[in-house]
Amino acid sequence: MNSTLVLIQCNDQMGLVSRIAEVIFAQKLNIDSMREFVDESQSLFFARLECSGAESDEAFLCDELTKKLPGGAVVTVNPTSPKKIAVLVTKEYHCLGDILIRNFFQPKDIKVSCVIGNHTDLKSFTDGFSVPFYHISNKNKAREVFEKEMSEILEKYEPDYLVLAKFMQILSTEFVAKYANRIINIHHSFLPAFAGGRPYRQAFERGVKLIGATAHFVTQHLDEGPIITQQTIKIDHTYTVDEMVKAGQEVEKAVLNKAISLVSQDKVFTNGNKTIVFE
Amino acid sequence: MNSTLVLIQCNDQMGLVSRIAEVIFAQKLNIDSMREFVDESQSLFFARLECSGAESDEAFLCDELTKKLPGGAVVTVNPTSPKKIAVLVTKEYHCLGDILIRNFFQPKDIKVSCVIGNHTDLKSFTDGFSVPFYHISNKNKAREVFEKEMSEILEKYEPDYLVLAKFMQILSTEFVAKYANRIINIHHSFLPAFAGGRPYRQAFERGVKLIGATAHFVTQHLDEGPIITQQTIKIDHTYTVDEMVKAGQEVEKAVLNKAISLVSQDKVFTNGNKTIVFE
Amino acid sequence: MNSTLVLIQCNDQMGLVSRIAEVIFAQKLNIDSMREFVDESQSLFFARLECSGAESDEAFLCDELTKKLPGGAVVTVNPTSPKKIAVLVTKEYHCLGDILIRNFFQPKDIKVSCVIGNHTDLKSFTDGFSVPFYHISNKNKAREVFEKEMSEILEKYEPDYLVLAKFMQILSTEFVAKYANRIINIHHSFLPAFAGGRPYRQAFERGVKLIGATAHFVTQHLDEGPIITQQTIKIDHTYTVDEMVKAGQEVEKAVLNKAISLVSQDKVFTNGNKTIVFE
Amino acid sequence: MNSTLVLIQCNDQMGLVSRIAEVIFAQKLNIDSMREFVDESQSLFFARLECSGAESDEAFLCDELTKKLPGGAVVTVNPTSPKKIAVLVTKEYHCLGDILIRNFFQPKDIKVSCVIGNHTDLKSFTDGFSVPFYHISNKNKAREVFEKEMSEILEKYEPDYLVLAKFMQILSTEFVAKYANRIINIHHSFLPAFAGGRPYRQAFERGVKLIGATAHFVTQHLDEGPIITQQTIKIDHTYTVDEMVKAGQEVEKAVLNKAISLVSQDKVFTNGNKTIVFE
Repeated sequence: MNSTLVLIQCNDQMGLVSRIAEVIFAQKLNIDSMREFVDESQSLFFARLECSGAESDEAFLCDELTKKLPGGAVVTVNPTSPKKIAVLVTKEYHCLGDILIRNFFQPKDIKVSCVIGNHTDLKSFTDGFSVPFYHISNKNKAREVFEKEMSEILEKYEPDYLVLAKFMQILSTEFVAKYANRIINIHHSFLPAFAGGRPYRQAFERGVKLIGATAHFVTQHLDEGPIITQQTIKIDHTYTVDEMVKAGQEVEKAVLNKAISLVSQDKVFTNGNKTIVFE
Repeated sequence: MNSTLVLIQCNDQMGLVSRIAEVIFAQKLNIDSMREFVDESQSLFFARLECSGAESDEAFLCDELTKKLPGGAVVTVNPTSPKKIAVLVTKEYHCLGDILIRNFFQPKDIKVSCVIGNHTDLKSFTDGFSVPFYHISNKNKAREVFEKEMSEILEKYEPDYLVLAKFMQILSTEFVAKYANRIINIHHSFLPAFAGGRPYRQAFERGVKLIGATAHFVTQHLDEGPIITQQTIKIDHTYTVDEMVKAGQEVEKAVLNKAISLVSQDKVFTNGNKTIVFE
Repeated sequence: MNSTLVLIQCNDQMGLVSRIAEVIFAQKLNIDSMREFVDESQSLFFARLECSGAESDEAFLCDELTKKLPGGAVVTVNPTSPKKIAVLVTKEYHCLGDILIRNFFQPKDIKVSCVIGNHTDLKSFTDGFSVPFYHISNKNKAREVFEKEMSEILEKYEPDYLVLAKFMQILSTEFVAKYANRIINIHHSFLPAFAGGRPYRQAFERGVKLIGATAHFVTQHLDEGPIITQQTIKIDHTYTVDEMVKAGQEVEKAVLNKAISLVSQDKVFTNGNKTIVFE
Repeated sequence: MNSTLVLIQCNDQMGLVSRIAEVIFAQKLNIDSMREFVDESQSLFFARLECSGAESDEAFLCDELTKKLPGGAVVTVNPTSPKKIAVLVTKEYHCLGDILIRNFFQPKDIKVSCVIGNHTDLKSFTDGFSVPFYHISNKNKAREVFEKEMSEILEKYEPDYLVLAKFMQILSTEFVAKYANRIINIHHSFLPAFAGGRPYRQAFERGVKLIGATAHFVTQHLDEGPIITQQTIKIDHTYTVDEMVKAGQEVEKAVLNKAISLVSQDKVFTNGNKTIVFE
């Protein structure tokens, strides 16, 4: 038995589910799981279908669906898997460590193509996993030069996603545009609280009783892109900034792990500045 | 614009979604939200559809769906709402209080028909909400007599659900059978841990770091019916049994509230000893 | 066996715990539980001790402690209990309902002196609990007049705390100053995210995956006072603003309940714009 | 400024805190943080004090405290740090991976002396971290022989703690006795639910809505030792056993990480079959 994954995004219309189900049935596929969502304010339809049955002609199925759906529909049948991922880091190890371990033991989930660091701190660790590490310094360097150097490497690997695993640099609008909805960042606060720099220091000053982390797609507006998933943990008055950082790292790695897991299973659609997550 | 809710439970077959969607489309209804689940081990199909459109002929729609589905399909179009609820209590107020307040302010959610107590402790409180309270003592009384007295009252109100809001009595197999999958109990532990009596005492003795509550349908097997929802909270070594009870009450009322909310929106299907919850 | 609660706030010095413990021991009291915290940046010391033993001369114990502590120490022995609470409301019932039920069944926890509403929506409900309800309209009325009318009632009851249970009015600096660190507000977001008006609408627009609530002391700066406790729950893309509001209400009432519980047990100290909570 | 950590466990008596604080003050140490707990049913006293000040004579301080405390008091001043840890594994990588990364980047937290596996699956991974891996097969081998072979290795490293990171073997009473309260296990359920084998299968069959993990000290009674910390996550009807396993692994590694963190900071005392955790 083969399994076929179908992703659909199009304008909403009456009878869409019926048309989709009919095409799938005609291909002798059974719908094992179907999740759909209608954004009524935008009149947009999103669906994710897991089907099983005889081997399907992917191109034909895609074509048939597109024909039956409103103009401009985006239909994907059996998207690439595992996703190729390039990880961008600075000095902190916790998120990278979690990703590399997963890459090592769960090769069907993700495929880490390379790690790029603007510092060398994580080089030997990455080497230990036999994953290529590139040191691209941004010191005394214009951002466009820095980004050009990164782009050259990235073009070689053609990653599906860029994961900013505590990459403490701000990317240019031009760079971000090249990877629209394909750059995932982990921000160390429950956004929109404490956007920008030093969120744990901000949290300490404010005396909050929760800290958290947010995984989101990167857009040109810092810390304002579509949120994929976020989580909080309880803290109290005894936490210093350093203790918040340490406790926060556990949440950061869990949240980024979850986001990568969702994206690698094609469970996340972007819809303007929001996401639809078919968990 | 009218909204139509459709619930389906039947044997699984290829093409079910297609057939269902076709019937709904033919009635000029739009599917706003569709949730389905296939239990592959049992080959059972469950679905819940929220539709909108022209006013629908409920009986006709139900009929059309039934015709197109495998034999034995259970189809419900626009189930009763709000659900009529009879609440059974003993002495503890916290769950009842939450239900009565909701009943008072949110009459579209639920309709509490009556409260039955085997003690009188909660009578004046219930009276304050102008909800009929019946005191049926079980003292020095055979269980069948006690249950017969309750049944007489219940038959008068014909409730959709019985909610055991800290009702500290065990119901007979016969009584439970009359309300199959319609009796909701709140158990003061995260089942299956600490089934049976005095769960907080058991939790204290065991030195657990979490306590919780479970809302479940009642079956003839004590604390073993299908679980609707459950939740835990953190505790520590400083908690006495009494403090666990107090902290636990907050979880109990939240969990029972959630279960009633899910059931009153027809989001819960039972499937043998499990539930399917389309949250 | 009597129990004695001791609260201490003073400048930090070496040997404080030793001095405190010595005084308590001299009174033939046993320390059952001691929680202390030193804010090193401010060099401030906070402690809460639960003691048991022979009946203690409260005034003498307070005096002895004060003598041994640095100048300016604030020592409280056996603070008033239960706390008298005045509840201010507008139209929403959920937080008030929870408080009144607790007041009804747990008279040792809190004592609700009165409810003041700037609308009449919650009058009959409050009447049902035999708690005085005062309608003070703020319509077409200067804030100082509105607050003066409230103050007259409040002066009559001399409440220990004012609880803003979804009171949708902003209080003046003068009014707040009269009840410094004694006004508890429930804000319907996880502050500092979504301060100000319509937080659920803001949360919807931003596409967050968590919503929450924050209980805090009110200061002259809107939504910026010391946070007592806060909590979040998971939501997803299917939530409308109205559904967020409904889900949020459950968190709001749980968080406010928790804050009142902590405050009524004298477990909360304020420290500038932060709180110390000895949970 | 030096910091001094003091751990105390003794029979309870009136005035203990006073005596302890006096000794510490006499050593010109300041108490930065003090946590204590009295188990009233056993009349036992536990305390953990973080002090700062001039360099302290550890042996003298320990001696002075012991003299002032009831007979049989266990006093520890500045326990070993970082803790030496031997990790026992079978085939699953997720907990070991988390521990080795922490060991690599946070050498002040823990020191992994060696990894012992009854299978070779995790050898090359462990080698990559330059941590010695020993393969001790238990195949066709009496348990006493298997344990003797492990003991020989363990005696060489003299670890402070043994961590069973998904070690799927049951240890003998004799072996456990040698490391009383020093063997930490991660059990893949929220104990006491689903003790014993295949807890996710059990959870699936029961239809629970939560799964979890428990870190506990190992005693001779399987899955019944003192619980250090535990955590749950929400699941739903769509989870297969395999999906539960996968989701559960994230909780397992977080819970074991937390337990190791608490133990390595000497925040955990055992008290019969319970723990006292000064978080």
